[in-house]
Amino acid sequence: MHISRVSTILTCPDRNYLIVRVEADTGVVGYGDATLNGRERPVQVLVEEHLAGWLEGHEAERIEDIWQMLFRHTYFRGGPVMLSALAGIDMALWDIKGKAHDAPVYDLLGGRCRDRVLAYLHVHGRNDEELIARSRARMDYGCRVLRYSFETPDPRNPDTVYRQPHQDIATKERVEVTGDLRHAPAVWDSEVYMRDLIRVTHLLRDELGEDVGLIHDAHERLSVAEARQVARELEPYHLFFLEDPLEPLGVGALREVRAASATPLAMGELYNTVADTLPVLQERWIDYLRLDVTHFGGISPARRAATLADAYGVRTAFHGPSDISPLAHAANLHLDLAVPNFGIQEFVEHDARVFSVFDWKIDMSDGYINVPARPGLGVDVDEDAAARHPYTPGYLPALRDAMGAVHDW
Amino acid sequence: MHISRVSTILTCPDRNYLIVRVEADTGVVGYGDATLNGRERPVQVLVEEHLAGWLEGHEAERIEDIWQMLFRHTYFRGGPVMLSALAGIDMALWDIKGKAHDAPVYDLLGGRCRDRVLAYLHVHGRNDEELIARSRARMDYGCRVLRYSFETPDPRNPDTVYRQPHQDIATKERVEVTGDLRHAPAVWDSEVYMRDLIRVTHLLRDELGEDVGLIHDAHERLSVAEARQVARELEPYHLFFLEDPLEPLGVGALREVRAASATPLAMGELYNTVADTLPVLQERWIDYLRLDVTHFGGISPARRAATLADAYGVRTAFHGPSDISPLAHAANLHLDLAVPNFGIQEFVEHDARVFSVFDWKIDMSDGYINVPARPGLGVDVDEDAAARHPYTPGYLPALRDAMGAVHDW
Amino acid sequence: MHISRVSTILTCPDRNYLIVRVEADTGVVGYGDATLNGRERPVQVLVEEHLAGWLEGHEAERIEDIWQMLFRHTYFRGGPVMLSALAGIDMALWDIKGKAHDAPVYDLLGGRCRDRVLAYLHVHGRNDEELIARSRARMDYGCRVLRYSFETPDPRNPDTVYRQPHQDIATKERVEVTGDLRHAPAVWDSEVYMRDLIRVTHLLRDELGEDVGLIHDAHERLSVAEARQVARELEPYHLFFLEDPLEPLGVGALREVRAASATPLAMGELYNTVADTLPVLQERWIDYLRLDVTHFGGISPARRAATLADAYGVRTAFHGPSDISPLAHAANLHLDLAVPNFGIQEFVEHDARVFSVFDWKIDMSDGYINVPARPGLGVDVDEDAAARHPYTPGYLPALRDAMGAVHDW
Amino acid sequence: MHISRVSTILTCPDRNYLIVRVEADTGVVGYGDATLNGRERPVQVLVEEHLAGWLEGHEAERIEDIWQMLFRHTYFRGGPVMLSALAGIDMALWDIKGKAHDAPVYDLLGGRCRDRVLAYLHVHGRNDEELIARSRARMDYGCRVLRYSFETPDPRNPDTVYRQPHQDIATKERVEVTGDLRHAPAVWDSEVYMRDLIRVTHLLRDELGEDVGLIHDAHERLSVAEARQVARELEPYHLFFLEDPLEPLGVGALREVRAASATPLAMGELYNTVADTLPVLQERWIDYLRLDVTHFGGISPARRAATLADAYGVRTAFHGPSDISPLAHAANLHLDLAVPNFGIQEFVEHDARVFSVFDWKIDMSDGYINVPARPGLGVDVDEDAAARHPYTPGYLPALRDAMGAVHDW
Repeated sequence: MHISRVSTILTCPDRNYLIVRVEADTGVVGYGDATLNGRERPVQVLVEEHLAGWLEGHEAERIEDIWQMLFRHTYFRGGPVMLSALAGIDMALWDIKGKAHDAPVYDLLGGRCRDRVLAYLHVHGRNDEELIARSRARMDYGCRVLRYSFETPDPRNPDTVYRQPHQDIATKERVEVTGDLRHAPAVWDSEVYMRDLIRVTHLLRDELGEDVGLIHDAHERLSVAEARQVARELEPYHLFFLEDPLEPLGVGALREVRAASATPLAMGELYNTVADTLPVLQERWIDYLRLDVTHFGGISPARRAATLADAYGVRTAFHGPSDISPLAHAANLHLDLAVPNFGIQEFVEHDARVFSVFDWKIDMSDGYINVPARPGLGVDVDEDAAARHPYTPGYLPALRDAMGAVHDW
Repeated sequence: MHISRVSTILTCPDRNYLIVRVEADTGVVGYGDATLNGRERPVQVLVEEHLAGWLEGHEAERIEDIWQMLFRHTYFRGGPVMLSALAGIDMALWDIKGKAHDAPVYDLLGGRCRDRVLAYLHVHGRNDEELIARSRARMDYGCRVLRYSFETPDPRNPDTVYRQPHQDIATKERVEVTGDLRHAPAVWDSEVYMRDLIRVTHLLRDELGEDVGLIHDAHERLSVAEARQVARELEPYHLFFLEDPLEPLGVGALREVRAASATPLAMGELYNTVADTLPVLQERWIDYLRLDVTHFGGISPARRAATLADAYGVRTAFHGPSDISPLAHAANLHLDLAVPNFGIQEFVEHDARVFSVFDWKIDMSDGYINVPARPGLGVDVDEDAAARHPYTPGYLPALRDAMGAVHDW
Repeated sequence: MHISRVSTILTCPDRNYLIVRVEADTGVVGYGDATLNGRERPVQVLVEEHLAGWLEGHEAERIEDIWQMLFRHTYFRGGPVMLSALAGIDMALWDIKGKAHDAPVYDLLGGRCRDRVLAYLHVHGRNDEELIARSRARMDYGCRVLRYSFETPDPRNPDTVYRQPHQDIATKERVEVTGDLRHAPAVWDSEVYMRDLIRVTHLLRDELGEDVGLIHDAHERLSVAEARQVARELEPYHLFFLEDPLEPLGVGALREVRAASATPLAMGELYNTVADTLPVLQERWIDYLRLDVTHFGGISPARRAATLADAYGVRTAFHGPSDISPLAHAANLHLDLAVPNFGIQEFVEHDARVFSVFDWKIDMSDGYINVPARPGLGVDVDEDAAARHPYTPGYLPALRDAMGAVHDW
Repeated sequence: MHISRVSTILTCPDRNYLIVRVEADTGVVGYGDATLNGRERPVQVLVEEHLAGWLEGHEAERIEDIWQMLFRHTYFRGGPVMLSALAGIDMALWDIKGKAHDAPVYDLLGGRCRDRVLAYLHVHGRNDEELIARSRARMDYGCRVLRYSFETPDPRNPDTVYRQPHQDIATKERVEVTGDLRHAPAVWDSEVYMRDLIRVTHLLRDELGEDVGLIHDAHERLSVAEARQVARELEPYHLFFLEDPLEPLGVGALREVRAASATPLAMGELYNTVADTLPVLQERWIDYLRLDVTHFGGISPARRAATLADAYGVRTAFHGPSDISPLAHAANLHLDLAVPNFGIQEFVEHDARVFSVFDWKIDMSDGYINVPARPGLGVDVDEDAAARHPYTPGYLPALRDAMGAVHDW
């Protein structure tokens, strides 16, 4: 079985998704997700103009060889553009292998280690009442763990409100919209946010009780000093984990946050290679590794990183936002079932239009996701539907602080 | 597909081999190797009387779940008896999965990363002439890397000769014989051996030139001081690697050998779990990880350890002696083809009688092994033939030093 | 005095116990405990079919030589099966030596360092009232330190109750029953348990005051994140120690728990060799070393490990559950009297039927155990009684989490 | 002064170069190099379709703000595609600033720290005689330091020759050709190469004497074991430095090479961010930092990394190959003049056709480069000439080992 054709589909049923399509000479077609939100086109060009030529004619079963070849023989390796392209190809090849052998990908990865997958959803409140009401609605729906976000009016600047990025399908709210946010950058003040974070967390524990897990995403906006302080002050509310306290490149600074607090820590959505994970795992600075399978090069390397994490007692919490497609969410779930050290899965429901392109039905009940046993990744792509939703370029939002300086978003 | 029956076959076509046989309710039968040389029966009893009851009725596709269940739910985990039993079961399940999906195991592991596998053979000489002659014969046969062993008469004790364990099919010689060696323990003097090792290595380089890789196995018989000295004195002859300079439990002492020399180091044949590998990998004290897939719990954990090794720039050199069966050698080769950080494969040809039980044809040419594409592990077991070669209990040989004290063998 | 015969007795007066019986040519008979709960038969086969042949004819006084010979000359060393076998042999040889010299074992170990031995008992409550009442009863009986366990109903699953393994003779309750628990695995939720642990501990301190030592056994069920959090939150109740916060193979993770909390930590019941203890001692990650003399190879290596612990300021708390026989408990007590760095002794009273096989009287008063001065280990074995209680195979219980994944038990 | 237009020019006067062109509303035009060899198009698309929209309207003087904005507000940060795009923009903005203020860039960087720049050239020999002859010619021309490469026939495979990548203008030879090398991957054998490296280095020292600096580039092709061995064996020939002994992601492994040898080490041409440089600087594992200004995000971050290197006693040796344009070479030289801890500059002469597009004259005499005082970077771009040399897609060469596995190139 050889690869006969590699192409891409860039579609925007609600958000932009870049699909890699690999066709084998046996007629089997596999699909993978290569979406890099806000940078879709360089990945597309990389796959179509540079990588496809390496792939056509190669044996489709040799996934690892293809991965190594594309990774090492580019020489200038690494980074999100390259690894997103690799991820799309890797997923498509696992999809093909599963279809060719009539096996769900999880069976090719060693079989299910568990029957269902603990997942958490986002809940956002524009004010305390809304946050509590929506949290309760989630809990009534069966959710056992929630990722909460909120809005903090700046007490000194009446028009300014600080928010965290989120995706709350219940209300169709989303900070990470498609659109042009370059010229109206949001303002950010960590001090005000931190104070409100402690207050809101206290309120949630008070109102919701101890029976729900709470996750908060600091979204890499804190300094080391701020992260140390927040992690320690959050201890009494024993979060499920505190996500992304620091920006990803200042690796060694995590040691300081770790030393300051017993609050569980999670990082990883901006890591691209196993080398990025090595220090945080080896030094045991985190409790959950939150790789994004689409920006980490796909299923093959994500499994490798999960193996490393397991050796260090770290669990997985693969990134599951709405800016990756159901193909990537399916890849997450196949890994979730197969790796021994699974922790939790972030999950957001896509807009209904997304499912007109990606035919995928999964079922969440009692706070757990049940994954149907279908060959390959189990997601069908309707290429005609995809063509009806053309690419719509957008810009990610931008934060600046009160002095007008760039702030990590 | 569920497991319907788990049993074992203990056979001695030449040496003792313990085969685990797993049958699925679809009729597919898988075989794995659980041989623990000199301790075959405890493993057999463990599989038959304790583990089989856990397995029957379980889903055969869920290899990782079964592995975790047997490993963790024994509570008293680890050790060669338990891990050999697990290895036999794990290999048999991969064999079943391959046969059920009509795929060689290497394709289930991500596909081939390479076309053929660099292997080394043993060469043993009772004197210098024989060692050189046999080495040349191996080289003429295409061998690119040799593991050499030799015999050193004790200059002060005319009847005493120091040998290293080896398996040289060319001459049917083998130190690790089946039989009773308890009451005539061999004597050992590291000083005399070390002096001869340097002399013999110099001679080999002189006679054979630089175009052949040289491997020597110190077989865990050296003290830290001795290992440091030998590793340094061997530098000019740039070995492919020096194997097992130290006994396996004194882990931290490897740091000292490392610091003393640039000679590449290999260890691992006595490791049982990923936890055993962590310090040597993380500290990069070795260059080659020599796991024995049969004593490390099988293909699933061996792949995990290879993944860890890769993250630290360490390559594989899976253990391939004659006291594990062709099933285990096949497992080695499937891993060798599939892991990106393969280094080299130890290989010994089994006696022809072995192949009357294990139907397996592989081809070595030009110093490389070519693995045929057959479903599962690709080794057929003739159960009738196995029954014709009943178990023959034996004892491993024992070393003592000149004072009569126990010496690591 | 030479060893003339080595055999085993597998008996189930209440639970299964594997006794190693060594007979010297002088007629002296020694007994040791080689019980490996749930894996009795591989140990028995190892002793009878593989090790006995090495022992017969050997000088019985050379305990250390025999230990080294069996440990090193098996080549594939380590692990609970091998070390349990070694423990049975080692204890039996110390028993012989004591009887031959008319000396209690503690005198052969250098003589008593103390007159009596501080011990703790288990106390289990099915609800708060019962836990408090039973704790008070223990205190009235003289107990100075208690190991407490409790039951936590899952607030969301009315039929589910989380328990910790325990042995509370007062009520004849025991989670670790003999029987077949494979097919109805217990469920486990660390979150719910942790919350209740803090609540119960708070309650106990409140009700019992500060004059009683409190020990809790997390039984290796916590993740690193959870262990950090619990150890920190338990600080105000100053436990005597928190036992087994983590599974035994993730050694380096103890550093993280240590860094997060001043709560004293104890580990070790799953260690098999001195090499296992080295990192936790050297890095001073624990305060009490809880070796199980029966799974650590017997009295000889347990004394070695105690010596190492002393060098690092760590005290002993040898494992004393009901799944090892009075022979092993006696070995514990001889060590407790003889080592300078004794800390505390876990103690559970066996069912009366057990004493029909093992004739042993000890006396606990005022929270301390007094050890009678009898030759050898001081426990007589009634072989006829043992024969009347044949082996009853069983399976250890199995935990799975709410997703159906294997959880450390 | 605001940015009015950002565009790109992709041209192939000899090799492919991607030029970023930034125009200010004052009419000043700046040029920067964003060439990513073999991946030109994704960088071009990134600049044109994603980044240009952020830049137009921004103040051109705010180089640092623009750099931070583009780096941080992409969210998915890092990697060669992104950093090459940033480099092109950064250089173009420094070029504009220099031209706007009528100042060479080095004056804006704080002014010249030195008058001229020590540089080394490549010398390649197809055999010993040619290598020596060409080295002598270089020395006669004034060169004080040479980077040598050579060709090694495989003794066992008559048709196979191992080479290192190089650019030797004297003979117009170059391994890194434009063209399609995918389907005929070169073979590589480190063993044979290493042996020849020692032999050739010995020969060069013998023939050329001690008065010339020798640099060898292992081009990331060695395993840790091989790098340790080679670095140690090269000690007697005291190289100026050994370049890129290891692949860039296995960062910690450099410690091992460092520990094994006193041979000076240089790395960095594949680093993309300051975070990549932190471990090697902080641990002082290298002596020379070989950043590629075009793949590291431009002049601004390269200066930051040089500052860090200085704090740790590490000197610069900026990457200067022929696959970056004279714009990047000019950026190197401006930095070389301005940073206090300059070490040496790699330099290759471009083909004459290149200068038809990039109008740049520099002068090398006595082994030093003299940089003319011209505003901005000092390189004029002839856009019409560029248009006459359209983009010619190519593939980088690919190495595989004798087993057919991917080898780092």
